[in-house]
Amino acid sequence: MNRILMLGAGRSSSSLISYLLAQAKIYQWQIVVGDVSEQAATDRVSNSANGKAIQFDIDDVESSKAMIASSDVVISMIPAHLHPLVAKICLAEKKHLLTASYVTDGMQSFHEDAKSSGLLFLNESGLDPGIDHMSAMKVIDKIKERGGRLTSFESFTGGLIAPDTEPENPWRYKFTWNPRNVVMAGQSTAKFLSNGTYKFIPYQQLFKRITPVQVPGFGEYEGYANRDSLKYLKTYGLEGIKTMLRGTLRNKGYCSAWNVLVQLGCCDDSFQLEGVERMSHRDFMNAFVSTHDNVDEKICLMFGLSPDSDEMNRLRWSGLFSDEEIGIAKGTPAQVLEHILNKKWKLKPGDRDFIVMWHRFQFEIDGKQKEIQAYLTAIGDDEINTAMSKTVGLPLAISTKLLMQGKIKSRGVVIPVMKEIYEPVLNELAELGIRLKEEEM
Amino acid sequence: MNRILMLGAGRSSSSLISYLLAQAKIYQWQIVVGDVSEQAATDRVSNSANGKAIQFDIDDVESSKAMIASSDVVISMIPAHLHPLVAKICLAEKKHLLTASYVTDGMQSFHEDAKSSGLLFLNESGLDPGIDHMSAMKVIDKIKERGGRLTSFESFTGGLIAPDTEPENPWRYKFTWNPRNVVMAGQSTAKFLSNGTYKFIPYQQLFKRITPVQVPGFGEYEGYANRDSLKYLKTYGLEGIKTMLRGTLRNKGYCSAWNVLVQLGCCDDSFQLEGVERMSHRDFMNAFVSTHDNVDEKICLMFGLSPDSDEMNRLRWSGLFSDEEIGIAKGTPAQVLEHILNKKWKLKPGDRDFIVMWHRFQFEIDGKQKEIQAYLTAIGDDEINTAMSKTVGLPLAISTKLLMQGKIKSRGVVIPVMKEIYEPVLNELAELGIRLKEEEM
Repeated sequence: MNRILMLGAGRSSSSLISYLLAQAKIYQWQIVVGDVSEQAATDRVSNSANGKAIQFDIDDVESSKAMIASSDVVISMIPAHLHPLVAKICLAEKKHLLTASYVTDGMQSFHEDAKSSGLLFLNESGLDPGIDHMSAMKVIDKIKERGGRLTSFESFTGGLIAPDTEPENPWRYKFTWNPRNVVMAGQSTAKFLSNGTYKFIPYQQLFKRITPVQVPGFGEYEGYANRDSLKYLKTYGLEGIKTMLRGTLRNKGYCSAWNVLVQLGCCDDSFQLEGVERMSHRDFMNAFVSTHDNVDEKICLMFGLSPDSDEMNRLRWSGLFSDEEIGIAKGTPAQVLEHILNKKWKLKPGDRDFIVMWHRFQFEIDGKQKEIQAYLTAIGDDEINTAMSKTVGLPLAISTKLLMQGKIKSRGVVIPVMKEIYEPVLNELAELGIRLKEEEM
Repeated sequence: MNRILMLGAGRSSSSLISYLLAQAKIYQWQIVVGDVSEQAATDRVSNSANGKAIQFDIDDVESSKAMIASSDVVISMIPAHLHPLVAKICLAEKKHLLTASYVTDGMQSFHEDAKSSGLLFLNESGLDPGIDHMSAMKVIDKIKERGGRLTSFESFTGGLIAPDTEPENPWRYKFTWNPRNVVMAGQSTAKFLSNGTYKFIPYQQLFKRITPVQVPGFGEYEGYANRDSLKYLKTYGLEGIKTMLRGTLRNKGYCSAWNVLVQLGCCDDSFQLEGVERMSHRDFMNAFVSTHDNVDEKICLMFGLSPDSDEMNRLRWSGLFSDEEIGIAKGTPAQVLEHILNKKWKLKPGDRDFIVMWHRFQFEIDGKQKEIQAYLTAIGDDEINTAMSKTVGLPLAISTKLLMQGKIKSRGVVIPVMKEIYEPVLNELAELGIRLKEEEM
């Protein structure tokens, strides 16, 4: 095995591709980078002797087949809903596949076939999901080895901005990853286990029912529940645990302001808005309230907010009440909101992002209640070499190296919860400065 | 043409089938009633000489084709999502089709083929949608004939219970139509036009943004916006109107209590609940709040309600905080809620339902602002012969008769907004006692 096909050359792939190209020199690999934009692929490969840039479009099935057939391993960073198409070709051509995306039902359906074909389809191997699974399993396995019994596991991760980046930004947030995912976040019901009871939070409650999170040495954050925590009960080997909650971390105040947009319907992606080409930001907001002017006053009334409340200040700072033209011809509310927010939330030169991951494990051992908190922070170098790009890309890159070296024996559709993956990946991440601290209390 | 295939023999088809069987004697038609339960079809046909009961299952394609092929006209009252399957066979076999359901994209896609084949695929021909379209178009056409220019059209319809039915029921509501549709109501964004501005109400706002409706002689109601009002701008010929809103009518107080269930996530149909077989009603509610006991107190806190508020009284009356076992083995939240509510909301012997429809037309004529209100009320005979069954079934039955008599020339996928349909249908409904009153102010 010496040929890796890397699909997707967007900004988020930068650390991943740099790592692979560096390793390629050592191991004599060839790295083929494919993107719908051949230019993007070329930019990423630069003039590396072990790299090659190609145009790749999954909709062009014949060409995609040929490119996958001539590789040994495929890494896919293209949009997650396209992964089953990639997986189908990988299965037919007997190639391994690695992604940083959640295992969907579509991906899961390949498990038996991939396994019996001796193929690894490794998913959820970025940051969240990814490092969170790996670092949690490391602690969970250690607690079990000590004879402890887990009673509660909570885990929160957030991609924020560094404390010294844009101090005037009241959200303490910018887009450091796919903006669409941020706008669409939480639209499926969150499921988790709390104190022995299954709990379900619908979208309309998600940003109201927040969990305060204190990260030692880094201050106070707030977390909202993330998707389906229940499905990890079995994967993590935590059947019988009382509390199991995975969530997303934000700076304090983000959720109550974002909740206003959720409640109004601004994140709705189910229909095309009428007349976007003639709309201002203010007109956009006006489509979601019952009045015809003074949309900001109406929102204050609807949500019981004062005009100088933190929530209104955040919305105002984002330009949502301005008379500026939106500047796109059409879109769903979610697409329009993303476009408006991107005017303020796009990383500027010099901006640095900031990753925070925090786990809390509660367990019983020798008749005593114990707690371990584990946390990781990472700051980006600049607006290109982000902490997000590193923490998402490097676990995937290291996993690929391990696979190329024959060190991963797992096969089928899996996520990185087994020691043979998490141990070497976490070790190498630590060498690269991405390291969780643990405190037992 | 003398053979009508009527699909669906549920309780809601009773008035429709009775009407057809009575007309069949006069016109020498044969009425074939098909249902997945042959017994249900047999019960409905009774021993009528012109009727025949058959087992009909749309999933059995060959048998469905044969049954449709041997008929002249098909009326479908089976679940709406199955109508495109029926339409496909009707098109292949060159048969007319009538339904009381909304035109979906799936149904709309048959328009050109049905039209060029000389077939009528008439939809939205029940009560709401149905009589609302017909009665609105009658007034709209009259206003236009007088030289008036419509500026506003609002229309609300509700299926309620008669004032003397179950006076202790604080919701003033029971299931008089498909309970699932009631529980799932409003889950797609409502779209309408208000004072010249497009407005969008997401599910999480729908039961908060209500419109007070006063029906002359019948008191005060409240309405919430219903689906996509914008798509009727063109169908009704109302391009350029300032306000266009279709909605659903409920008794006062219903919406704010129902809103609690919406906000909690009890109407969610996107996932299977865990452990339903061991749950009480109270356990069900507990899955949607953050605490582990005192779910009613927690709900009061979450929504700022006092324990003896109208909202809490309604929820309590429906048994939602009781320790009674749910009594089903599995289900989505929406399915479980439907099951619990049905214990109290099912029509009992002697219960009578109550239909209210109300339109308001505002228009300019000779430089003056005018208004017409038109409204209809209907009370059921008992829990079987409901006003709902009559007002949904009879417009469909009368339309079928008109088609059989060659009196409808329209072809393709249409809704009953044309005079050739609405005039004779409304006239015959009036003879049967279903009549809108009009008041000009």
